[in-house]
Amino acid sequence: MADIDSPFEMIAAMAARARRASSALAHQPTSAKANGLRAAAEAVRADLAGILLANSEDMARAEANDLSGAMQDRLRLDARRVEAIADAIKAVAALPDPVGEVIDTRTRPNGLELTRVRVPLGVLGIIYESRPNVTADAAALAVMSGNAAILRGGSEAAHSNRAIHAAFTNGLTEAGLPTDVVQLVSTTDRAAVGAMLAAEGAIDLIIPRGGKSLVARVKAEARVPVLAHLDGINHVYVDGSADENMAGRIVRDAKLRRTGICGAMETLLIDRSYRDVAGLVRVLSGGGCEVRGDGRIRTLVPEVAAAAPEDWDTEYLDAIASVALVDGLDGALAHIGAHSSGHTDAIVAEDQDVAERFLAQVDSAIVLWNASTQFADGGEFGLGAEIGIATGRLHARGPVALEGLTTYKWVGRGSGQIRG
Amino acid sequence: MADIDSPFEMIAAMAARARRASSALAHQPTSAKANGLRAAAEAVRADLAGILLANSEDMARAEANDLSGAMQDRLRLDARRVEAIADAIKAVAALPDPVGEVIDTRTRPNGLELTRVRVPLGVLGIIYESRPNVTADAAALAVMSGNAAILRGGSEAAHSNRAIHAAFTNGLTEAGLPTDVVQLVSTTDRAAVGAMLAAEGAIDLIIPRGGKSLVARVKAEARVPVLAHLDGINHVYVDGSADENMAGRIVRDAKLRRTGICGAMETLLIDRSYRDVAGLVRVLSGGGCEVRGDGRIRTLVPEVAAAAPEDWDTEYLDAIASVALVDGLDGALAHIGAHSSGHTDAIVAEDQDVAERFLAQVDSAIVLWNASTQFADGGEFGLGAEIGIATGRLHARGPVALEGLTTYKWVGRGSGQIRG
Repeated sequence: MADIDSPFEMIAAMAARARRASSALAHQPTSAKANGLRAAAEAVRADLAGILLANSEDMARAEANDLSGAMQDRLRLDARRVEAIADAIKAVAALPDPVGEVIDTRTRPNGLELTRVRVPLGVLGIIYESRPNVTADAAALAVMSGNAAILRGGSEAAHSNRAIHAAFTNGLTEAGLPTDVVQLVSTTDRAAVGAMLAAEGAIDLIIPRGGKSLVARVKAEARVPVLAHLDGINHVYVDGSADENMAGRIVRDAKLRRTGICGAMETLLIDRSYRDVAGLVRVLSGGGCEVRGDGRIRTLVPEVAAAAPEDWDTEYLDAIASVALVDGLDGALAHIGAHSSGHTDAIVAEDQDVAERFLAQVDSAIVLWNASTQFADGGEFGLGAEIGIATGRLHARGPVALEGLTTYKWVGRGSGQIRG
Repeated sequence: MADIDSPFEMIAAMAARARRASSALAHQPTSAKANGLRAAAEAVRADLAGILLANSEDMARAEANDLSGAMQDRLRLDARRVEAIADAIKAVAALPDPVGEVIDTRTRPNGLELTRVRVPLGVLGIIYESRPNVTADAAALAVMSGNAAILRGGSEAAHSNRAIHAAFTNGLTEAGLPTDVVQLVSTTDRAAVGAMLAAEGAIDLIIPRGGKSLVARVKAEARVPVLAHLDGINHVYVDGSADENMAGRIVRDAKLRRTGICGAMETLLIDRSYRDVAGLVRVLSGGGCEVRGDGRIRTLVPEVAAAAPEDWDTEYLDAIASVALVDGLDGALAHIGAHSSGHTDAIVAEDQDVAERFLAQVDSAIVLWNASTQFADGGEFGLGAEIGIATGRLHARGPVALEGLTTYKWVGRGSGQIRG
């Protein structure tokens, strides 16, 4: 007897339902999607008690399993956090809808009118870890961009995710949207992740949201295209022409405002002609940051520890920075070319020619002049909530919000044209 | 002793050189790229004798190996064809350069100015069969879009490809562009293809140009993203509201103008309320096309042969068409949803509401109203030469020309902004 519950068959069945739901959703007007999301937000808010009860089951198991404090904090919901989840859904409902946007229009000499029109990607697979709010955030972005989503959350948050998903879907269906637009993989079997990654043609795009080991597994195994970044090994290059006050403020913010986010600076490159190298290094060390320097930095700032070769390729996500002295812009470009992860790199400089060369030649998803790398964020870019930041080269780069979840099709309107 | 000539090491070394060349090329002004291509075209023209000599070696081997007449015709060069290759390179040099184009601009409330700027993808891997002109066509598109290319042509055309590549590269370097911008894999070892497909991170995009078995192998094996289409199972739906004269002309053109191209119609869907079903079917059969009909068509047009179930999923690329009678637009949408390969589907209708529903709901890369499917072509779309037609959903869809060979980066210009 065939095992009809194999992970591959389960995902194939979910993807087939998702495809049908996405076809129906793709042609819904903006108002229908926004109304659906507002109803979903209300349903989440209305089910506060049920969601907290489910979360308490996850929390009890987390304590029994001795999960770390940080993990437990990510998992924990309270009234304020549930309210924030509902607010975030409503915020997505207020974003401009990219679907139907005409990207370009051209009329051919033969009279054929061609337009390129944004359409949803189709079926998204979203794989995430223990933050239950991702269930609602990711679902809201999928729905607003006209896509169906298959969600697979971490097993630690299984009860919370099921409760949030149930409320969200109830809201959507009350507002008249298809039930299968957002489906949650109910099993905590890890084989379900493998089945999602293998579902080429059935799932159009996989988006992993979580730590590096999750992203690395997804990227290594997936046959479905993946939108993600693995590392944020971000550089700030302080040119000799930089304003010293600005350099200090940007370096401190880029490294220390929040050390655990992907937009945090990991390596500081200082031009050897910069006036106060020691002062700039001490902005970091004085702010509680461990500094690991190359030989040239240590000559100028003797108290700095020595960086090992692997430091230049390390994403600390912590109050640690590697610092190197470089020979002007060309030295910085060479270092960044060798070590950047293509996420976000910044220059601090008053010399506009130097800055523009940096912006042109650093080939990262985000390049910044006289601004902190911590701006690497869809909200800060004015895109609204982001589904993630992509460092691949195809489809979408940098913060990916609603537009990145669409593709386009060519629409031609003729009057009987033939090639002849 | 390590085998330094393993296919993987060879491709890795070529890709590293390509990456350096692409970094240099990425910042060349349009004029430098166009001048390089014009010099490459002149060099190809100047080396006519050498190219024809090389081609004669390929042709001698083709005859000895008893290659089909069609294969030999694809392979054969003469003075006119070499001239056409040179002209095609010059035509690419005259295309608008997408690199540096600002896609959008926004100034954030904090004064940070953000732009999205088109940049080259980086390193392209182009895998093709026996047409030697692809060596020049693909190289020209890569150079004009600022990308480096690694070319791997069919072994049948090895001598011709080497001669064209040598001339092309001589022209480029005489004009001052980096030599390694266009590299040709010199071995005919098939393992080199496998090494290209596995070169994740070193090659940014693989573009297969050739028949279905090549594309299928590339799609099945590649770890690098692939831009391609496998099938062009294209439909023309003739609505009951269609103008009969227009329907006949479009159906004839879509199927019979050229039967071997990916934009050819393979399946004709006729609305049961269309006035002259038999007349429309006989446009095809009278034009020398074999018609395979469903049961409903055969009731109305008894001389038609019966379609087998697999006919609805077959790309004939020949003077054969499958024909079904459908219940209006909804019947057509259901059939297309089940059988389209997502390439090009068209409707012939006078009823605008029906046509707009078709254009909105058929989710193919190209959807056309009252025009022949044979317009599925970059040149016909006004994009200039195309590198191929893509039916995937990510990055680029439909005819892919220079713009499809670019990505973008985010550039932020600030005045000391920090997240704080």
